[in-house]
Amino acid sequence: MCRFLFFIAAFLLATSPTLFSQQLVERMEPPNWWVGMASEDLEIMLYGKNIGAYEVRLEKYEGVVLKEVKRVQNNNYVFLNLTLAPQTAPGNLTITLNSKKEAPKHLSYPLLPREGTNKNTVGFSSADVVFLITPDRFVNGDTSNDNVNGFEDKVNRKDKGGRHGGDVQGIINHLDYISDMGFTSLWITPMLENAMPKNSYHGYAITDFYKVDPRFGSKDLYRSMVKKANEKGLTVIMDMVANHIGLNHWWMKDLPSQDWINQWPEYTETNHRKSIILDPYAAEEDRKIFFDGWFVRTMPDLNQKNPELATYLIQNAIWWIEYSGISGIRMDTYPYPDMEFMNDWSAAISKEYPLFTIVGEEWSTNPNQVAYWQEGKENYNGYKSHLKSVMDFPLQNALVNSLNNEKSWASSWIELYETLAQDYVYANPNNLMIFSDNHDMSRMYTQLNENYDLYKLALVYLATTRGIPQIYYGTEILKTNPGSDDHGIIRSDFPGGWQKDKVNAFTGHGMSLKQKDAQEFVKKLLNWRKSTTVIHSGSLKHFAPKNKEEVYVFFRYNNQKKIMVILNKNTEDVLLDLTTYREILGESLSGREVLNNVRINAVSKLSVKARNAMIIEVE
Amino acid sequence: MCRFLFFIAAFLLATSPTLFSQQLVERMEPPNWWVGMASEDLEIMLYGKNIGAYEVRLEKYEGVVLKEVKRVQNNNYVFLNLTLAPQTAPGNLTITLNSKKEAPKHLSYPLLPREGTNKNTVGFSSADVVFLITPDRFVNGDTSNDNVNGFEDKVNRKDKGGRHGGDVQGIINHLDYISDMGFTSLWITPMLENAMPKNSYHGYAITDFYKVDPRFGSKDLYRSMVKKANEKGLTVIMDMVANHIGLNHWWMKDLPSQDWINQWPEYTETNHRKSIILDPYAAEEDRKIFFDGWFVRTMPDLNQKNPELATYLIQNAIWWIEYSGISGIRMDTYPYPDMEFMNDWSAAISKEYPLFTIVGEEWSTNPNQVAYWQEGKENYNGYKSHLKSVMDFPLQNALVNSLNNEKSWASSWIELYETLAQDYVYANPNNLMIFSDNHDMSRMYTQLNENYDLYKLALVYLATTRGIPQIYYGTEILKTNPGSDDHGIIRSDFPGGWQKDKVNAFTGHGMSLKQKDAQEFVKKLLNWRKSTTVIHSGSLKHFAPKNKEEVYVFFRYNNQKKIMVILNKNTEDVLLDLTTYREILGESLSGREVLNNVRINAVSKLSVKARNAMIIEVE
Repeated sequence: MCRFLFFIAAFLLATSPTLFSQQLVERMEPPNWWVGMASEDLEIMLYGKNIGAYEVRLEKYEGVVLKEVKRVQNNNYVFLNLTLAPQTAPGNLTITLNSKKEAPKHLSYPLLPREGTNKNTVGFSSADVVFLITPDRFVNGDTSNDNVNGFEDKVNRKDKGGRHGGDVQGIINHLDYISDMGFTSLWITPMLENAMPKNSYHGYAITDFYKVDPRFGSKDLYRSMVKKANEKGLTVIMDMVANHIGLNHWWMKDLPSQDWINQWPEYTETNHRKSIILDPYAAEEDRKIFFDGWFVRTMPDLNQKNPELATYLIQNAIWWIEYSGISGIRMDTYPYPDMEFMNDWSAAISKEYPLFTIVGEEWSTNPNQVAYWQEGKENYNGYKSHLKSVMDFPLQNALVNSLNNEKSWASSWIELYETLAQDYVYANPNNLMIFSDNHDMSRMYTQLNENYDLYKLALVYLATTRGIPQIYYGTEILKTNPGSDDHGIIRSDFPGGWQKDKVNAFTGHGMSLKQKDAQEFVKKLLNWRKSTTVIHSGSLKHFAPKNKEEVYVFFRYNNQKKIMVILNKNTEDVLLDLTTYREILGESLSGREVLNNVRINAVSKLSVKARNAMIIEVE
Repeated sequence: MCRFLFFIAAFLLATSPTLFSQQLVERMEPPNWWVGMASEDLEIMLYGKNIGAYEVRLEKYEGVVLKEVKRVQNNNYVFLNLTLAPQTAPGNLTITLNSKKEAPKHLSYPLLPREGTNKNTVGFSSADVVFLITPDRFVNGDTSNDNVNGFEDKVNRKDKGGRHGGDVQGIINHLDYISDMGFTSLWITPMLENAMPKNSYHGYAITDFYKVDPRFGSKDLYRSMVKKANEKGLTVIMDMVANHIGLNHWWMKDLPSQDWINQWPEYTETNHRKSIILDPYAAEEDRKIFFDGWFVRTMPDLNQKNPELATYLIQNAIWWIEYSGISGIRMDTYPYPDMEFMNDWSAAISKEYPLFTIVGEEWSTNPNQVAYWQEGKENYNGYKSHLKSVMDFPLQNALVNSLNNEKSWASSWIELYETLAQDYVYANPNNLMIFSDNHDMSRMYTQLNENYDLYKLALVYLATTRGIPQIYYGTEILKTNPGSDDHGIIRSDFPGGWQKDKVNAFTGHGMSLKQKDAQEFVKKLLNWRKSTTVIHSGSLKHFAPKNKEEVYVFFRYNNQKKIMVILNKNTEDVLLDLTTYREILGESLSGREVLNNVRINAVSKLSVKARNAMIIEVE
């Protein structure tokens, strides 16, 4: 038996150089590239036993030059830096590996033609409403991939931190639902391989940057999902992570160089003190801990100051955009990686896809801290960002506080009003992503203590103020996490996503009347927003909350249209004197109230029901 | 008797035009001016029965031109606009009033020579520590002026809102105390006439802009106080109000024009929503209410858009500086008057006195809101302020919260640390006035729940961080306002300021040991600060609070000197590992601890006592 195998191996060695090279070269990343990209540079990482010892040559290919063969600390890696002239034709590059002892080995590297439209991909914007999905918890569309050989973390729906089986096919199956609800974009939390022993469902511990986790599906299926979503008027936002990897990433067994990750004499966690980024008095010691400290023990912190790694990560993002046709990226923990790298990364993507949108996560309730990262902001330290959108945590915080806090001179709507008043710190407030909750915090309905009236006020606010609304899956059916803000509980299963679910939010089966009402409310609101362009791009004017700070009124308007939004938090009906708003309404108000489809004719006072919102299309 | 008086009057009318004019002209303001001022313009307000009907002529005076005689709605006022050429000699202008029915009347108007040094008055700065005094409550140095005929509000020490008798003479008598304590500047709340029926003691309801309230003393005595203070190394900061007047201001009986004050169909109070100043979405309606609404019913809101009033107020400030020799102004409610006016006012003072300092009150805990008003700030809306200093309410709030709040990831020293981290929003953070309390809020010792350790930590922080520390009178002897934050209680009498006081903080008589200890602590701290220039102008570097956020360490340093400040809020002793600070300390620490005068020799760990501060002069 052994001798037979040896014979086979010897045969292969002698007759099949390509196959041999594939054995030598365990990894070649990116697996392909495209001709006609805006950037002419390409870095190819080759990984294989002792590959650094080989001489590398590029066989002649019109327009392509091998500029540099970069060898690193670990001889099992080599990085090829190529340039591709603009008019280079698609085809296969041949890369030859030579050593003195062996015959030359040849590698084939595909240069694909671009699909015509990718470079003009239009990103998400304030014209969109984004549906945020934790894919393991949305719909199990393919039970055959629930467990996959070689992956330790198996399906267990009883474990809040376990995999529940949701997948790409599940999303594909319900694109109609999402679209019918009025959403126009999908942000799906990471789906790349997370070969971690537990808690792998969340996806933020990536172990292979070029592979969709097989328990979610394949990269082909992912691409197919994007295409089908696009056909239904939905764009897709991919969730990416550049700060860290999962401890089981294949790199960790054989690092390209010791500085590939940020190493510490003893385990050192980031201090999370983001204020140091702008702090004129910050100590270097704290800056180092912030940027280079690890997020958690199971996620090694990448050192993006390493130039090969930086290029690897940038190309990976571009590869996924070009390959899959996504319209946006949500970048996790945006302030934590090396700041210069993160900006180069954004800039490189913008260069390839000028209309594309990236939204960065900066979890701070301080508008200055958030504004720092947005493209166009003139920062005191000269930092010029290339990030179009940032998560609006200050508004999230103010919205929930405004709804929950008792009225006082400085609270209730005042918090929201005064937070919005600080929009001057942003280069483009309308490009901020706004939300009432997400996958990392308690469900909105729980945050609002399951007060349905306040829930509706929050939704009306999100749907009508400036910015890009994002709504977490299940919010439309009043999902809660009573008694626990454990992430696994927050990210619980969407009813109807699993066979035999007793409640099915897609069909309405088993849902409570209140859930149905909420779903209808969201559907009506978002579909109205979809066609109401003044909300997407109109000006905003708001009035200081009155009636003991419990009524908040604002307008969205342009030359064609005016929308009046009234949010009454009072537990009593309010008769609103419209003379306050005469600078925009004139002497009286006529129009149509959208939520209840009621006409309003030339009134100077308006009765607003207790704890109720009105959206009026002013005529 | 009557016939005799008539005879006298007739005689005066016939023979004494000057005296007659003085009868005709009840008010002539400013009462004098100076030659050689930076601005060549002078507006004189004349007030008298039907004075608007007279023709006005200026008798020839080299260098002086009467440009315009401005008549207003009310015929009892006339405003003369003159220009004074740079080389104009001092002397008396003669202004002649003519009417067809009467003989010409002559007014004499003094143009004084400037005292040489006034124009170079150096304002207060971060080299100073400011002692804030509510003068009615500090020392009664002259009981003869406790009650004054014609002034309704009489002395009543039992009434918390009543006058208690403190006065200018009281301050003069105790300048040595203030200076010995280590203070270098005095901010005294307003001393101009407040002829109000009650609550007149606080001084913010001015009824005559050119008169020191006789219950405080006279303007001559005020000037004498400034001179004596200066001789003892103390500068004086005058508290001014441009937003409003007292309802009993003489103008209110006979307004120059209806637009002299902001009139409303019914009483309308300012909404205090300062966020509208920067808010890109603010409604005009709210802006009008903010700026033109009244502060309180008893304080009519001045309309500084009226050009005669604007000039009047600007000249009044310059008059007091030039007349009295003060080194600074504290401007009350800086954001409330017309914004353009307020800036013209600051600019005009800066033009006359380039080294002078004005500090504006902006009661907001939002650094952006405060930063807006400081000279050098590039504001998004183009507003360019001329105000050197602003009150640092954000730091006050963070300091007290840091001391009071239980430790957590985001609280305790973190609040202070993260507030200071936002200093990039300020054009000059070192010119902010910092404080732990003032005359409008609970006493610091009360805010800190009478925790003496925390009190000392607060004082050390104020004395060593960036900015201009201000300490409210009585803080040095642990003044409190238990159970009430009524302004009259906060501003209670300084012990020893009244004859027969059982406790005397000037002599120590009757003081508790803790009070004596506090007084000594403040004295030592401030006198050390006075001579330690690195605190005045050195750089600052701070480290993220450690030991569960309970130890905060920062440095002040320049090329010559380094000061290390350690604030330990832990209720236990802490052994501090100094390697954290090696970027500034190197391998070990040697130096002198200031508060306990202890030598430290080449240590790499430092023991810090529970709830204790250390100030180390690093060698």
